[in-house]
Order: sequence, then C-alpha cells, then structure tokens
Amino acid sequence: MTSQFSKKSEAWSARFSEPVSDLVKRYTASVFFDKRMAAVDIRGSLAHAEMLQAQQIISAQDYADIQRGMAQISSEIESGQFEWLLDLEDVHLNIEKRLTELVGDAGKRLHTGRSRNDQVATDIRLYMRDAIDQIIGLLGQFRLALLDLAEKHSDTILPGFTHMQVAQPITFGHHLLAYIEMFGRDAERMQDCRKRVNRLPLGAAALAGTTFPIDRHRVAATLGFDDVCHNSLDAVSDRDFAIEFCAAASLVMTHISRMSEELIIWMSPRVGFIDIADRFCTGSSIMPQKKNPDVPELARGKTGRVNGNLIALLTLMKGQPLAYNKDNQEDKEPLFDTVDTLVDTLRIFADMAGGISVKAEAMRAAALQGYATATDLADYLVKKGLPFRDAHEAVAHAVRTCVEKNCDLSEMSLEELQSFSALIGADVFEVLSLEGSVAARDHVGGTAPKQVKAAISRIRQQLLK
Amino acid sequence: MTSQFSKKSEAWSARFSEPVSDLVKRYTASVFFDKRMAAVDIRGSLAHAEMLQAQQIISAQDYADIQRGMAQISSEIESGQFEWLLDLEDVHLNIEKRLTELVGDAGKRLHTGRSRNDQVATDIRLYMRDAIDQIIGLLGQFRLALLDLAEKHSDTILPGFTHMQVAQPITFGHHLLAYIEMFGRDAERMQDCRKRVNRLPLGAAALAGTTFPIDRHRVAATLGFDDVCHNSLDAVSDRDFAIEFCAAASLVMTHISRMSEELIIWMSPRVGFIDIADRFCTGSSIMPQKKNPDVPELARGKTGRVNGNLIALLTLMKGQPLAYNKDNQEDKEPLFDTVDTLVDTLRIFADMAGGISVKAEAMRAAALQGYATATDLADYLVKKGLPFRDAHEAVAHAVRTCVEKNCDLSEMSLEELQSFSALIGADVFEVLSLEGSVAARDHVGGTAPKQVKAAISRIRQQLLK
Amino acid sequence: MTSQFSKKSEAWSARFSEPVSDLVKRYTASVFFDKRMAAVDIRGSLAHAEMLQAQQIISAQDYADIQRGMAQISSEIESGQFEWLLDLEDVHLNIEKRLTELVGDAGKRLHTGRSRNDQVATDIRLYMRDAIDQIIGLLGQFRLALLDLAEKHSDTILPGFTHMQVAQPITFGHHLLAYIEMFGRDAERMQDCRKRVNRLPLGAAALAGTTFPIDRHRVAATLGFDDVCHNSLDAVSDRDFAIEFCAAASLVMTHISRMSEELIIWMSPRVGFIDIADRFCTGSSIMPQKKNPDVPELARGKTGRVNGNLIALLTLMKGQPLAYNKDNQEDKEPLFDTVDTLVDTLRIFADMAGGISVKAEAMRAAALQGYATATDLADYLVKKGLPFRDAHEAVAHAVRTCVEKNCDLSEMSLEELQSFSALIGADVFEVLSLEGSVAARDHVGGTAPKQVKAAISRIRQQLLK
Amino acid sequence: MTSQFSKKSEAWSARFSEPVSDLVKRYTASVFFDKRMAAVDIRGSLAHAEMLQAQQIISAQDYADIQRGMAQISSEIESGQFEWLLDLEDVHLNIEKRLTELVGDAGKRLHTGRSRNDQVATDIRLYMRDAIDQIIGLLGQFRLALLDLAEKHSDTILPGFTHMQVAQPITFGHHLLAYIEMFGRDAERMQDCRKRVNRLPLGAAALAGTTFPIDRHRVAATLGFDDVCHNSLDAVSDRDFAIEFCAAASLVMTHISRMSEELIIWMSPRVGFIDIADRFCTGSSIMPQKKNPDVPELARGKTGRVNGNLIALLTLMKGQPLAYNKDNQEDKEPLFDTVDTLVDTLRIFADMAGGISVKAEAMRAAALQGYATATDLADYLVKKGLPFRDAHEAVAHAVRTCVEKNCDLSEMSLEELQSFSALIGADVFEVLSLEGSVAARDHVGGTAPKQVKAAISRIRQQLLK
Repeated sequence: MTSQFSKKSEAWSARFSEPVSDLVKRYTASVFFDKRMAAVDIRGSLAHAEMLQAQQIISAQDYADIQRGMAQISSEIESGQFEWLLDLEDVHLNIEKRLTELVGDAGKRLHTGRSRNDQVATDIRLYMRDAIDQIIGLLGQFRLALLDLAEKHSDTILPGFTHMQVAQPITFGHHLLAYIEMFGRDAERMQDCRKRVNRLPLGAAALAGTTFPIDRHRVAATLGFDDVCHNSLDAVSDRDFAIEFCAAASLVMTHISRMSEELIIWMSPRVGFIDIADRFCTGSSIMPQKKNPDVPELARGKTGRVNGNLIALLTLMKGQPLAYNKDNQEDKEPLFDTVDTLVDTLRIFADMAGGISVKAEAMRAAALQGYATATDLADYLVKKGLPFRDAHEAVAHAVRTCVEKNCDLSEMSLEELQSFSALIGADVFEVLSLEGSVAARDHVGGTAPKQVKAAISRIRQQLLK
Repeated sequence: MTSQFSKKSEAWSARFSEPVSDLVKRYTASVFFDKRMAAVDIRGSLAHAEMLQAQQIISAQDYADIQRGMAQISSEIESGQFEWLLDLEDVHLNIEKRLTELVGDAGKRLHTGRSRNDQVATDIRLYMRDAIDQIIGLLGQFRLALLDLAEKHSDTILPGFTHMQVAQPITFGHHLLAYIEMFGRDAERMQDCRKRVNRLPLGAAALAGTTFPIDRHRVAATLGFDDVCHNSLDAVSDRDFAIEFCAAASLVMTHISRMSEELIIWMSPRVGFIDIADRFCTGSSIMPQKKNPDVPELARGKTGRVNGNLIALLTLMKGQPLAYNKDNQEDKEPLFDTVDTLVDTLRIFADMAGGISVKAEAMRAAALQGYATATDLADYLVKKGLPFRDAHEAVAHAVRTCVEKNCDLSEMSLEELQSFSALIGADVFEVLSLEGSVAARDHVGGTAPKQVKAAISRIRQQLLK
Repeated sequence: MTSQFSKKSEAWSARFSEPVSDLVKRYTASVFFDKRMAAVDIRGSLAHAEMLQAQQIISAQDYADIQRGMAQISSEIESGQFEWLLDLEDVHLNIEKRLTELVGDAGKRLHTGRSRNDQVATDIRLYMRDAIDQIIGLLGQFRLALLDLAEKHSDTILPGFTHMQVAQPITFGHHLLAYIEMFGRDAERMQDCRKRVNRLPLGAAALAGTTFPIDRHRVAATLGFDDVCHNSLDAVSDRDFAIEFCAAASLVMTHISRMSEELIIWMSPRVGFIDIADRFCTGSSIMPQKKNPDVPELARGKTGRVNGNLIALLTLMKGQPLAYNKDNQEDKEPLFDTVDTLVDTLRIFADMAGGISVKAEAMRAAALQGYATATDLADYLVKKGLPFRDAHEAVAHAVRTCVEKNCDLSEMSLEELQSFSALIGADVFEVLSLEGSVAARDHVGGTAPKQVKAAISRIRQQLLK
Repeated sequence: MTSQFSKKSEAWSARFSEPVSDLVKRYTASVFFDKRMAAVDIRGSLAHAEMLQAQQIISAQDYADIQRGMAQISSEIESGQFEWLLDLEDVHLNIEKRLTELVGDAGKRLHTGRSRNDQVATDIRLYMRDAIDQIIGLLGQFRLALLDLAEKHSDTILPGFTHMQVAQPITFGHHLLAYIEMFGRDAERMQDCRKRVNRLPLGAAALAGTTFPIDRHRVAATLGFDDVCHNSLDAVSDRDFAIEFCAAASLVMTHISRMSEELIIWMSPRVGFIDIADRFCTGSSIMPQKKNPDVPELARGKTGRVNGNLIALLTLMKGQPLAYNKDNQEDKEPLFDTVDTLVDTLRIFADMAGGISVKAEAMRAAALQGYATATDLADYLVKKGLPFRDAHEAVAHAVRTCVEKNCDLSEMSLEELQSFSALIGADVFEVLSLEGSVAARDHVGGTAPKQVKAAISRIRQQLLK
C-alpha cells in the first residue's frame, strides 16, 4: 500500500489519467526549498496526532507509532540520511510517505482532519516565530555592541551633518544612539508582528474545517500558539504575517543601509573619521593598495534584496480570490531569503561594531570647519533679547563675512563680531567652542555628554533585564 | 523687518548672493501639498509657545500675541482667505511669516528652540495620528457592514473554492467572516503603528537639540503624545512610521483587492452569485447593455498606487546618511495619497456592503457542481475504520467514475458506491448533502452555521463596546 | 608561488594584517551562485589572452599555456571534478588560481591589463546575451504553439468580456491573438535590451583603463560584441542592462499572469470554457475530487518574484557613487533567478498550449447570455440614420425590457423591437446573431474569422522566416 | 436631446434604476487629472471624424460641424473658460457633451465606430509620444551642458574611487563622461519605447472592432502613428508601453540619484571638490551658516517616486483578465507624475550643470592621498617582466610600508622602492606621477585627456547633427 506514495504524482493518481511531466514536476515542486521546515513540520504533526488520540480519533497505538516513526525521521534528517524525493513534491509528502513506510496504517491516519493547506500554514508560522525570536535576539546583541562603542565615545566630538553640510557639533556617542533607537524600534515591530504570526491555522483543513471532533485549542497550547485563527478560509489563505514580517525586515535593512552609507563615507580617506578592522574588508585584484569596506557595502546592497522580497509577496497576494491558491507556494523563498539576510547581516554587524576604530582628531578637525557653532551664536543673541529671526539674520551676515575672509566665527575679534550685533559681549567665545556648544544641548534627546551617558545606561538596562 | 519674509528665498538671504530661480522654487517648494498640515502645524506651534512661556523663554505677552495671531490665521485658512505663497516654500514659513505680519516680534520669537526639521516631523506625526484614528474607525464601520451581510447569510450555501475549483460547501456568512478577520488584523496593525507615530520629535531642533531650557515632556503632554523621541538625530530623520503606515496600508489594499476580485467574478454572468447596486456601477459609452462593477475594479487597481507609495518611501530612505536631508520632503505626497486612498476606499466599501444582493439559488446550484462533498465521503470512510489515505484513494476512484458518467456522488446508487468500498452504508447519503456537510464542520473557525453565528456575535460585541 | 592563492583572503594579504572571519567569508563570497558563469568567464579570459599576445603584452607561449590550462579547467568543470573553494570567493579567482596551478607564470600574466571589475562586467554581459537569445527563442516557440491553438479556433465563438461582463461576441482565435501580440512585444523588447547588453566593458580595468597597449575592438570582435563601452568608469559600474532586462522580464510575467488568470477562470466549473491536460494539474491531499490548474497558478504567483527582482536591482543602484562598489555583487542572484523563471515558465507554457482543450458549447452558451449583440443593434440603427448617441439610448431601453422579461434581444418579436425604434426592420435578426456580429467586425485587428486567419498566417510567417 | 449628457451618470441612465452616489462619482471620476489630455483627445477625435467622412460613415456637413465645434472647444479650454464637470466623469465625455451642445447631431455621430476604450488608449499614446520627444530633447540638452563642463575639465585630475576608497587618478572630464554615457543610453531606451507607443489602438472600439467600414491606416497616417495595433482586445487593454516608459524613467532617475549622491558628497566640506551655485541651494531656518544642495538632494529623493510609479503600474496590470477593466483608469496619475518629474528634473539639472564650480586644488590634493598610483607601479613591474600577480604582491608590500611610514609611494627613495623589487629603476618616478598615470591610460574609454577630448567631440557631434 505504501506504493501509492512512491511518486507524489501518484498521491492523487486515482483521479488522473496522465502523469505529470518532468518539467512540470520540477516547476511545481517545493521540496528543495521547503525542506528547511522539516523540524517544524514534524513538531506540528506530533501535536496534531497527540490531539487526534486525545479526542479518540486515532488510537493510542497509532499515536505511539507516529511518535516512533517521527523520531526516526528526525534522526535521519539530522544525520543527512533522509532521501528527499522531487517526485513527492514537498517536505510534507516526503515526511508523510516515509512515516507510512516506517509505521504503516498509523502513518496513513496522521492526515485525518487536516489538509496540506492548514499544515503548511502552521509550519510557516512555527518557522517564522523561531526566526523572529532569533532576530529580536540579534537586534539586542547588535544594540549592546553599539552601546559599548557609544559609551567609549560619549564625549568624542564630530560635526553633525544635515544635507551633508556641517550643521552643529555633536558627540559620536549621540550619533550612534540614533541607530540604537532605530534598531530598538525594529525589535518592537518584530514583537508586534510576532503576535499575528503566533496564531494556529491547523484545524482549518482544506478551507472549511473538518467533520472530525478536533480540539484546536489543545493543539495551540501544545505548540505554544497564543490563539487559533478564527476563520478557516482566512487561516489557509492568509499570508499577511509574511508581508508584515518582510516590511519590518525592509526597515531593518533600511537602517542597515543608512549606517553602512555612513561607515563607507567615514572610512573614505577625505573624511577619515573611522577605520574598520581588516577582517571586514577586502582588497582589489588589480590595485595593490586597496582596503575596501566590503561588509557595509554588501549590506547596503542587500537592502534591495529585502525590498524586492516585500514586493514579491505583495504582488503575489494582490487580487487572489479565496481560499488557498497554488500561487501561495511562492511565499516561501522570499521569506527564507529575508530571514537569512537579516540573521547574517545582524550577526556580522554586531561583530563589526567592535572592529570600528574612531579617529577622534579627524572628527574634531571637521567640526571646526563649516561654522558649526553659528546656531549657538544666534541662540546667544536671543538670550540677550533679540527675536530669533533677527538673530538668525545677524549671524548669517557674520558667516558671510567669515566665508569671504576664510576664517571661523571663533577666529573673529570681539570688535568684528560686535559689528553684526551690539549685543555681543566677551562671553560669546564660550558659546563658540565645540565643548560649550555640545554641553549646552542638555535635555532629553540632546547631544550633551550627560544626556548621552544617561541614555546609554537606560537602554543597556532595558536590554539586560 | 517683516520684509525679510516677503520671499522665502530671503529667509536665509543674508548668506546667499544669488536668488533662487523660478523653476528651482517650484521644484523645491512643498506648500501646494503640505498646506493640508496647516491645522496641525498651528496646533504644534501653540504647544511649543505655551512651553516657551512656561519655561520663561518667551514672555506671557509674546505667548498671548502668538495665540491671537494663530487664531486669526486659522480662521483665514478655514475661510479660504489665507494667501499661500510659493515664494515662502512650505506651510511652515507661510504661517510663520503671516504670524509675524500680524503680531510682530512675538512671531519672530516662536521659532526659538526649534527648527523646521523637528517642526515638520511633529506636524507629520500629528497628521498621521489623526489619519490612523480615522482609518481605524472606518475599518470598524466596514466590518460592521460586512457583519450585517454575513448574518443575513449565515446559512446560505455556496461552494468554497480552492484553486478556483469547487472544494467543499461553505456558507456565505463564513466566507465574509474571512474578510472580517483580515480587516480586523488591519486595524490591529494600524494600532501598533500608532504607538510608534505617537512620539514627539519637537525639541530635537535641527538635529542636536537646543541650548534653551525646554521641557519636551510638557509639549508631549499638551499634544497628547505618549512619549518623546529619545535621540535628536533620529527624531528629525526618522521616517520609519511613514513606511510602517504605508506597509499596513498596502495590506489593507491587498485585502480590498482580494475582495474586489471576488465581487467582480461573482457578478460575472457565468458565475452570477451576486448583484451590486446600480449606484456603484457604470455603463459603457458604446455597449448599451453594460453594467460594470466599477468600484471594486477601481479599488483593485488602487492597490498598485499604495504598493507604489510604499516603494517610493523605502527607496527614499535607502542609504540616507544622518541627519535630515532634503530628500525627506518627498515623504509627504506618498503618505497623503495613501491616506486619501484608504479613507475613500473604506468609506465606499462600507457603503457598498449594503448594496450587495445575494443570488442564493445560483450559489446553491454551483455547490452541487464539482463533487463538493467528496471529502465528506472520505471522512465517512475514515470513521468506518479506513485509514485516511486509503479512504482518499477510494473516493478518488468514485469521483473518476462520476466524471465519466457525468453525475454527482449523491446521484449514484448505494450499490455503485459500495463498489468503491464495502464500508459504505445507507447512511452515506446524509453526509453527501450540502446541509449535512456544512453543519458537520462544527468547531471554532469551521463553516457550520452555528459557528458562523457565534463568530458574528463575538466580533460585533468587540466592535460595539 | 602559487600558494598565494591557496586562500582568497591571501590574494591581497600582503597589505592586510588580519584574516577575514568565516562569517565574513561566507557573507561576501559569491562563488556558490556565480559559478554558473564559469563558461563565459573562460570564454572572456581566452579572448583577453588572445589579444594580449597579439599586442605582444604576453608571449605566444604564455597564450598557448593559458589555452591549454583553460581547456583542462573546462573539462574539469563539465565533469564535476573542479573543486570550488569558498576561500577563493568567486568564480573568477577560483579559475585563475587553478590556471596558475596548472600552467604557472602564464596564469599569473592573464590578469595583465584587466581587473575583476571589468572581468565580471564582461562575464555578466556574455551570460545575459545568451539568456536573452534563449528567451527570444522560447517566446517564439510559445507564440507558435498559441498560433496553432488560435488557428483551430479561428471561428469558435465566446463572449468577449470587459469588466468581466459580457461585452460582444468574439472568436477564441482572436482572443489568443491578443496574447500572441503581447509576447511578440516582449520579444521586441528583449531584442532592444540585447543591443545595450552586447557592448564590451573589458579594457576598463579597475575603473580608468589600463597602461598596457590593449586593443579593445579586437576583444569585442572575438567575443561577438557589437561595440565597446565608451567610458571606463561607466563600464565597470553600469548595471542598467540588468535592470532593463528585469523590467522586460516583468512585462513577460505580467502577460503570463494575465493569461494564467484567464486560464484559471476558464477552467473554473461555473465558467467551464476549457480543460487543461492532467499533466499540468495536481490534486489535493484531502479532497479526492480536485484537479487544480497548478501551473498557471504558480506562474501567476511567480510574477511577484520577478517584480521583486526588478525592485531589488533598482534599490541596489539608487544613489551609488562611481565607480564600482561591492553592492554590485548583489546584482547576480536576482538576474539569475529572473532568467530561470522566464526560461522555465515559457517552456512549460509552450508545452501547455497544446494541452488546452476548448469546450466550444460552453463558450457559445455564454455568448448568448448578457446581450452581447446590443452594440450591433445600436450600429444597425446608426446605419439607418440615427445618431449614435440616440441609438445607444434606444438600445439601452430595449435591454432593460429584456432584463425584466428575462429574454435575449433576439428573442423579442419584431413588433416589440420596433417599440424602441421605428427604424428596426426584419433584417435586424441577422445582426443579432453571434455569427453575424463576429463576421461584421471585418477590419485589421477586428474579430472577424477572416481577419483572425490573416493575422495568424502573417505572424506565423514572421516567426518561421 | 442634449440633456442626456447634462450628467454623465445619465449617459447610460436608460439601463440603470438608481443614480450614482456623490462619493462614488468622485471615486470613479478622472476628469481632474485626465483633462491634461484635452488637446490630444481633440486631435484624435478630429482624425477619427475625418476618416468617418472619407469612408462616408458621416456626412461632409457633420465633419465640418465637428471641426467647427472642436475649434471652439479648444479655444474655450485654452482661455480657461471651459467648464469641467465631475458629473461627466472624464475628459472624453466632457468634450463630447460640449460638442453636442455646440453642433447637435453631428456631435452625437462622432462616437460612431469607436468606444471610450480605444479612444482613451489613443489619447494616452499621443500624450506619451509628445512626452517622450520632450524628454529625449531634455536629455540631449543636459548632455550638452555636461559636455561643456567635461571639456573645461578634460585634464583636471581627481582621484577615481572604487568602494569610496582612492583607486587611481582620473580626470574630471572623464568622470563626467560616465554620466553622459548613462543619459545617452536613457535616450536610446526612450527611443525604443517610442516605437511601441506609436501604434494606433483606435478602431478596436470596445474590444472587438466595429461593424462600420473604418480605415484604421488612414487615421494612423493622419495622427503620425507608425502602425496600427494588430489585435483589438490587446489594443484596448495593453498598458505595456506605460510600464516600459516608467521602467526607462526609473533608470533616468537612478542615474540622477547617482550623480546627485556624488554632487552632495563633493560639496560636503570634508571633500570640497565642487561648489554649486546659490540659486540651486537653500539655507536653514535655524542654522544661519547653512548652504544646502537642495536640488540634488530632492532629485535623489524623487527616485523613490518614479520607482513607486513603476510598481504601481506593474501591480495594476498583474493578473488582469482581458479586455478592458476599470482598473486601467489608475494608469494615468503614475504616468503623468513620472513625466512631470523627469521633465522638471532634467531641465533643472541641465541648468545646474552650468552652476557647478570645480575646486581643482582640492581634487588634486585628494588624488595624492591613498596610493592612487600603486597600480601604475605594478604595471611598471609587469612591463619589466614580472608576472602580474607577483607584481601585485610586491606593490602590496610597498604600500604596507608606506602606510606604516605615513608617506606616499612617490616619496620613497629609489633604494627603498628597490627593496620591494630589484626591477625598479630611476624611471619609476614618472609612472608614479598623477599626470603620467592619467596620460598612460590611452585607449578607447580610458581616462587619458586625449581620449576624453576625443569622446567629448564625438558625442557633441552626434547630439548636434
């Protein structure tokens, strides 16, 4: 009897008069990419079988046989001895067929009250839940590594840029905290997505539920799901959670791309703010002097891959009628690729954070270019009573003069400065210093070292608790 | 002095030696699309001014002047008398300039301790928060309208399809509940997104915070924000929330596209399951007989627009270095267009749900095609002791015979049926009936009318509480 | 000396003080996906070496050694004996290192006057050119298969739909010709793209050209390129052709998705216009009666994958400064996946076209529903002298009466028809017949069987010449 | 009788029992964005009417009336007196209704033998053809402006970068030529796209052609189309050309984004290679010293908008069954927005090219950093007989020593250099100079000033002929 399974095309052969061609087999098969769900498929099947026997739909003996068979299959897969057959199309039929070979009729009873439609939906969700938990963990590790670097540089001054023009002096620790915030939001979003992943579709069967007296909440509890999917048609056709995950992943990679852009620019010799350890760089096949920041470049490029996966899934679901359609088989590869990209990238970035060396003098030199303290001068005038818009105007005139004379604001004499506003006094030079400027932005979210240190300590506590 | 503002190009003219060309002005201006943020811009400015006077950065008189000026500006805008100037670039400078015209120096003091960078970020978040609340409300109304329709048809039988092939009988109410679940998840996602929208960037100033003794938590409380943004560079450059919103919106439209696809197919004469009220349809300029389901077609098409907006924003942010760059001005149009599309579409769909009339006989006739109860027969055999896989095989043979004889399973005699399995008895005809099949799927999420009614009542209670 | 290559990380090790970590190696390596370019890499290297010796940059002996070594490498790769090393990062270094093992110094001279940057760009273009030629061939085969089907059904009548509502009668051959036009445009676009692919980057070296007296036109001629890339920075960093190809591919898949949508709907039992041969369909694990059109469903889903690849590449290139950046390594996987998807899909669709059986009676029955000849009646009235808009109005009234009486226009008596316009005579019934309606649309592009046959014959001649 | 048109909803009212609601009207109307096609709509209608009278389908008098009416409508539109009515839904019905008001029955005869489906398709193609011609012209102007700048700097030396690391010295003229090549390919692609745009759909009527004896080739000739669309179903539903145009536009914007990225980085004070004229820059509302390169930043951001439009159209067409569906109305806004974005951006960039001032000393200083001539040294060794791989190795050692000693290769003594290879002689210092390095890359596509000048002259001739 197990011969019915020896080819997948025969799994439904009784109704069919013509075998599936080899190209069709390869085109429609998924086993080469979905076999990574083998462990969760077995976990799901065991929970289903446990419920079937608890509800007396199958016997205790059947359940024991299924347990025994699945144990052997697990070990065959782990040891690489399991033979995956294209003819059996997917991970689910491959495992079920092997089970039936091993334990006979009990294997044929496993599929009672379920369908591949709800089975595959359950497997993906189990896989996704594990992946999300791993990613949240990696985001935490990466943030801890960035916190260490930020702490070391909580008062290292560099110019803050807007429009890539020097804006105001900031500290490098403060700059890194911006990314730590971003990756923190990413973890929040993953957590929110997890809620919607962690609902059990099993029990929806093909699309309408089953005639067997199943207990869905029991299966949910066994597998650690928070709830069951409340409509069977939705349960088998919903791929929202995959799209939501890819959207959250696109944001992670967007943040990675922004940080990478900065790392690459900072390591460019004209900027020279940092160096990245050799082990994250490569050379050139032709230019003997090159040391290239390959890792951030490649990571920046991988943003495209993840955005593309998101579009792939959105396009996939557009206009699909209920319930399950074969189109949905295309959900897996973009999802797996997204998980792999995030896991590898976050792991490598967490490691690379420790390989960044800061060139504090270059940063400081740059902060002295570009009139970074002009706003401080305007604020100074406001505090002396000038309306902000008038202060802004007066300082703009002063900067223009500096540009013409090729000097910094702090390099003008008091008399020169006073020609722009009579309100200027000798105390002005304090506000024109980098340290003075930075320390003065002393409120929640500001760049003052005091605030930076407080933020680092707060976030580290959150992460370590 | 107010003349400094008579042209925006002059707002920073003191540092510039050459006026901005007309094309550049038009290219870089945003006032024609960002003026829809006028109300939130004023709300934000008033909260900022209130804090400035509480912190004694401006005087009580200044604050009173600003309040008075803003009240007048609000009424000018509402009455359409406000003159928007391209030369003043954006909504923010237009309003500030008018304020200074109206109240003089107090107007020039309003910008103390803030920058357009944190001002615009605050405005967008206020606008988004309102938009999200409106969309959540509309999702609720739409779901209520669908619940009414589902209740009316909690036992109207139609074929459930997978792969557009007849799968198993279901009820129309059950089918609608699938969409009610989807739009429910959309509301959840909007709620999650709202948490990340509802944080105050004001106080970040240009990028580094300000030297004035501001109280950010006070402003947050005034404006109803849950928290402040904890890093100033991130505060001015973060557009995550816009992307997250557009991703959630893409899912809303994906669901709309799926429902539209079904409405269009159902109204096609060969299917003929429903009719849509004339007021949602249009005719043809050439074919006098046509009645076209324009609203669902157009809505399905609008999925593209929203997916496009999501890609626009993801592309926008890819690789952007910190902190604010002018690129970010491009965030608004995709966002506004997405909000408009969702608001219009949800409103019209909530209305259209009441304009769907169901052709129950056509649905029933269709359910009798395609061997919809074949699974019931297989389940019947399993309950008689056959392993599921063997039962599946036996029924496949029976179906093949029916196809050849062009009859339904229920139209075969008991003898004929028994030729496929000796386990079949006279009680089989019960399980082959549509009503029997539907009623038997009686568990959470199943299509049994009892379950459908319970789900409707549960969701209605959640929505109305 | 060859030991310098035993690990790729050592290829530039002299400048580096720290080895690359294993994760970094895996993250930055491309050999596992770019080894499919081995044959074109060797082809390119041989053409380069031929030119080097012709220009007396290397000796004739060196060239002979390189030829000999490459011949052996080719046969090792074909026989599966070649050992691909992750440590050597990519296909290029793997082959060059093996060459040096085999032939010594000649191998080390191969890279004279070139860089991996122009080498990889050349390889991709050679690979793409072959892929495009294959795809153009497959588009032709698919169109021929569709032409055969169209010819068989050049006068099989079915309803033409707009808005999924019955519009006017058409022939099935005419319907298929619409797709034949689409796939014809796809071939045109691929041909246009080929022009821009088929330009030689080699000679650009790293980014600026080389100091050796190379002859780029000679290499171009050897490799069959139409021209050389005219700027070296552009040559190494341009990936336009990859994006243009993916955009053309997205259109191919868009057409496939539209055709698939129709095949799926046509095979749905309520429509029942066609059947698709069993070998392109699969069954269900739970529902014994199911026969699902898996191939068109999956193909429709694969549209997402190709759209996603397009976005991946556009995102990749956005904002990249000149010249080559490591980001570009991410160009290959989306490209390869797109090629594979198109090749497989077109091959299977060309085959499937022969497996479509048409149910002509169901088509005819459907054409008799929905007042398909109402436009013919309006045209009839215009020919009798009524302005078109008035004719449209009169027929709309007639259709409304038919809807109320539940009959077709052709089922009304002459008297009834005359109540809508006195211009109607006994000759009206001819224009209300399906055959009369179809035959009357007798101009280029119209649905008349005469026109359909002419179009089929014209296109077939183009394809076979 | 003209009252039938006083509201669009009445244009097909005879068949409808219920008026369209106001929200539905607004949701489904297109007049507010498609009225920009008024001129091409009238052009198309006149060509159609001319053919109708030539074929004696309408009388000469009717044609004269239509000409007269259309002349008046054109002048009403130009003078802003034309009243656009939402009730009449779109540009087509607005114009036809006004025509009927003005000329009576002749107006009602205009729609003979056509449908809005083929009419709108014709209008879009006419609009697109004009837009493409304008864009090709603007690409030419932009390239000419870049050629002028390149010529001025055909021997200005700056470092060529790969991976944002100094690679080899190049000339600024050579660098600009890379962009001139890119925008040249863009023009080629637009030209290729134009071929597929410039085919006439008119005559397809609703979807199947018409029963009137029309002459489609006559209309094509009148309107300047190269050919007619050869299948009527395809003619009304094809939007390939819109997608192809948007894909070509995405590449234009991708190139703009790359150039913008470089302009922004070059203008950043740490790099300081260029300055952009004030009229393309803006200041800050808070920081008085700021001069921001707003135009390239905004243009870089607009890449997102155009990529988004491409995805909008691809999503729109995915899975659409034949023939016309209302979804297609969503094609116009992305198209119009893309045209506007390209036209504005190219115009402003052509202008801005003349506003770029080059800081040649900063460029030269940068080229002296980063061992830009290391490859020249390796090539030198190869020419002395060392295999390239060994030469690469020797120079890598030399660079490492330089890094440790913090000096350039050219700053080492001959003895020091000889310690890395005995082959080095006194002539080495020539190859280590920037000018020597640049001049030596003297082949087609190389950076030698001679080659750069030749390329400039060749391209200028192509553009001016």
